[in-house]
Amino acid sequence: MENQQVLIDRLPSGKLKSDDYRLVDGPMPELGPDQVLIKTIAFAITAGTRAGLQGSASYAGAPAAGRVMNGTGVGEVIASNVESIAVGDRVTAPTGWQQYAALMADLVTVIDPAHDPIHYLGPMGVNGLTAYFGLLEVGKPKAGNTVMVSAAAGSVGHMVGQMAKIQDCHVVGVCGSDEKGRLLTEKLGFDRSVNYKDANYRQSLKEATPEGVDVYFDNTGGMILGSALFRMNVGGRIACCGVVSQYDTDTPEPGPKGVPGLLVNNRITMQGFLLFDFADHYARARSDIYGWLESGRLTSLQDEVVGLAAAPEGFVDLLSGGNVGTRIVRLDQ
Amino acid sequence: MENQQVLIDRLPSGKLKSDDYRLVDGPMPELGPDQVLIKTIAFAITAGTRAGLQGSASYAGAPAAGRVMNGTGVGEVIASNVESIAVGDRVTAPTGWQQYAALMADLVTVIDPAHDPIHYLGPMGVNGLTAYFGLLEVGKPKAGNTVMVSAAAGSVGHMVGQMAKIQDCHVVGVCGSDEKGRLLTEKLGFDRSVNYKDANYRQSLKEATPEGVDVYFDNTGGMILGSALFRMNVGGRIACCGVVSQYDTDTPEPGPKGVPGLLVNNRITMQGFLLFDFADHYARARSDIYGWLESGRLTSLQDEVVGLAAAPEGFVDLLSGGNVGTRIVRLDQ
Repeated sequence: MENQQVLIDRLPSGKLKSDDYRLVDGPMPELGPDQVLIKTIAFAITAGTRAGLQGSASYAGAPAAGRVMNGTGVGEVIASNVESIAVGDRVTAPTGWQQYAALMADLVTVIDPAHDPIHYLGPMGVNGLTAYFGLLEVGKPKAGNTVMVSAAAGSVGHMVGQMAKIQDCHVVGVCGSDEKGRLLTEKLGFDRSVNYKDANYRQSLKEATPEGVDVYFDNTGGMILGSALFRMNVGGRIACCGVVSQYDTDTPEPGPKGVPGLLVNNRITMQGFLLFDFADHYARARSDIYGWLESGRLTSLQDEVVGLAAAPEGFVDLLSGGNVGTRIVRLDQ
Repeated sequence: MENQQVLIDRLPSGKLKSDDYRLVDGPMPELGPDQVLIKTIAFAITAGTRAGLQGSASYAGAPAAGRVMNGTGVGEVIASNVESIAVGDRVTAPTGWQQYAALMADLVTVIDPAHDPIHYLGPMGVNGLTAYFGLLEVGKPKAGNTVMVSAAAGSVGHMVGQMAKIQDCHVVGVCGSDEKGRLLTEKLGFDRSVNYKDANYRQSLKEATPEGVDVYFDNTGGMILGSALFRMNVGGRIACCGVVSQYDTDTPEPGPKGVPGLLVNNRITMQGFLLFDFADHYARARSDIYGWLESGRLTSLQDEVVGLAAAPEGFVDLLSGGNVGTRIVRLDQ
C-alpha cells in the first residue's frame, strides 16, 4: 500500500512555482508508540504556509527540500496506539500534503461527530480561530467602530468582516478584484469594499471610511498597511496577523511610512499575534463560531481543489489572489 | 517696557537653521480676562518641538512665520486676573520663547513652593512625565526585564533609564557618543550603553542585550527602531514616544523593515502615546518623581544656555545631539 505525498522539491527562490514541489508515492507510514494513523480527507492551503518556506524568517518552522509539504488537514483514524482516540474518529491534525500520516496523539484533535469536519479547515480551524482571536482579543472592536480588513475575501479576512458585523461594527474590506468586493458586500454583509489594485485606491479607501478606522485587521502588510495607517483614528488598534504581500518574494519592501510617527501622533497600537498563544481558549471560540454558523450569521466560503496533484498549482494561484475564502484540497479516494 | 521675543522667521525647509528665527523687542502683553501675566525664568528646548515646525504632520499644532516660538517655561506671576493664582506664584506654562507671556489661567500650573521650579522643565515637567508614563504605562516593564532606550542621554531618555533601574530592570541606553555612554553607565546607573554611530553598532547592541529586549522606549524611530525590532523578545513592548531621527528633515525615511513581519512572529506590541492622554495622573507621577529625586534614586541632568538670543543655536545644536539631559534656556534678567 502506498502513500501519495507532495514533497518540497526545493525551497522556492523568489516567487513560488508549482514545480518547486514533487508528487511521489512514498511508503505507508508505520504506527509508533503514542501515535495514530490518519487517512487524510482534505487539507487547507493558506497564505501563511508560504511564510514557512522562508525558513527561519517565519514562525512556521523550517521546512526543507525532500520533506512532505506541511499543512493542516482533517481525516479519519484508521489505526491508533492511544486509548483516547479510536479507529473511525474524525480528527484535525497537521497531516501535511499526503494521503496517510502517522502522528503523535498530542498533535491530533478529535472532531465533535455532530460537526462537518470540513469546518475544521475553515471557520472552526486555524483560519476561523485566527479571525476570532485577532479581531476580538487584539483588535477589541466596540459597537459602532469602523473595522477595516485586508485580504478580505481570503480565508481569514472573510470571517473577520462577518465577525465584526456580529459586533455591530461598520466593516470595510480591502481585496484585489471588484468581483470579490461584490461578494463581500452582497453575500457576506460587508458595508463597503475597496479594490487595492485600482489607481484610485487611496481615495476610495478614504471615501469608504468617512469616520476613519478604529480597528485594522492586517493580513497583508506592505502598501495596504501603509494606507490604513493614514486612516486610523486616535486610539486605533492594528491587529497584525500576517504579511501576505511579503511572503512570495526574496526582496521584502521596507516598512510603511508613518511607523512610528503616525503611531505617536494618533496613539495607535500595532500588535502582532499568533493563534497558538490563544490555545487555552479554542473551545470557547469554536463554540461561539459554531453558534454563528448554525444561526446563519457566519457564512464560510470555500474554494475546492481535488487531488494531491493539483495542490501545488492551487497554492501558487492562492498566492496571486486566485482564491475566494478558504482553499481546500480534497483527496480523491 | 518691552518684551524680548524669539519669533519664527520662516518655517524651516530641510534642516533647521538658527536664522530661521528672529529676535525682536515686542510689545508688553496686555492682561485679558481670566489671564495671568508671567515673567519667564527659563524654558526648555526639546526635540519634540521640532515636530511642531513640520505643521500638520505633528501633534504640536501648527506654528507659523511671525509667531513666537512655542515652548514650556517656568516663571513668576507678575499680574493676575484670577483668584486661584496670585502675584508672586511660581508657575509652569507654555510661555514660549519670550520674556513675558499673558496666558489663560487654565494653561498655567502653580508650582509647589517647596520645589525648585527648574524641576518642572525636567523631571517633573513634560520630559519627566513623558518618561514616567511611557515607561510604566506603555512599556510595562517587569523586574528583571531588559529595557532599551534610544536618545538615552536626552531629556526623556536619561530619565527613562533611571526609572527602569528603579523597576529593577537591566537597562541599555543607545546614544550618539562614547562620552554620553560613559555618563549613562558611570553616573546614572545604566547597565550598558551603545553608540549608534559606531560601525559595529548592531553587533554591539546584540552583545549588550544577551537576553534580548523586553521593553524598548523609542525616542528616535528610524534605524535604531529597526535595530531594536530584531532584538525584541516574544511578547515585547515598544513604547513609541517620538521620532527625533525624522524631525529635522523634509524627506523622512521609510518605516523599518520588520514591520509588521517581526511584530507577528514575536507578538510584539508597538504603541504610540502622547503625554496629555495621562493628564489626570500627573499629580501621582510628580509625587513619585519628587520622591525619587529627594532620595537620590533619580538624577536630573540639565544643560543650560543663557539668554533668548542663544536659544535658536541651542535648538539647532540639540537636534544634532549636542545636549546632555534637558536643555534649558535661562533668561538673563
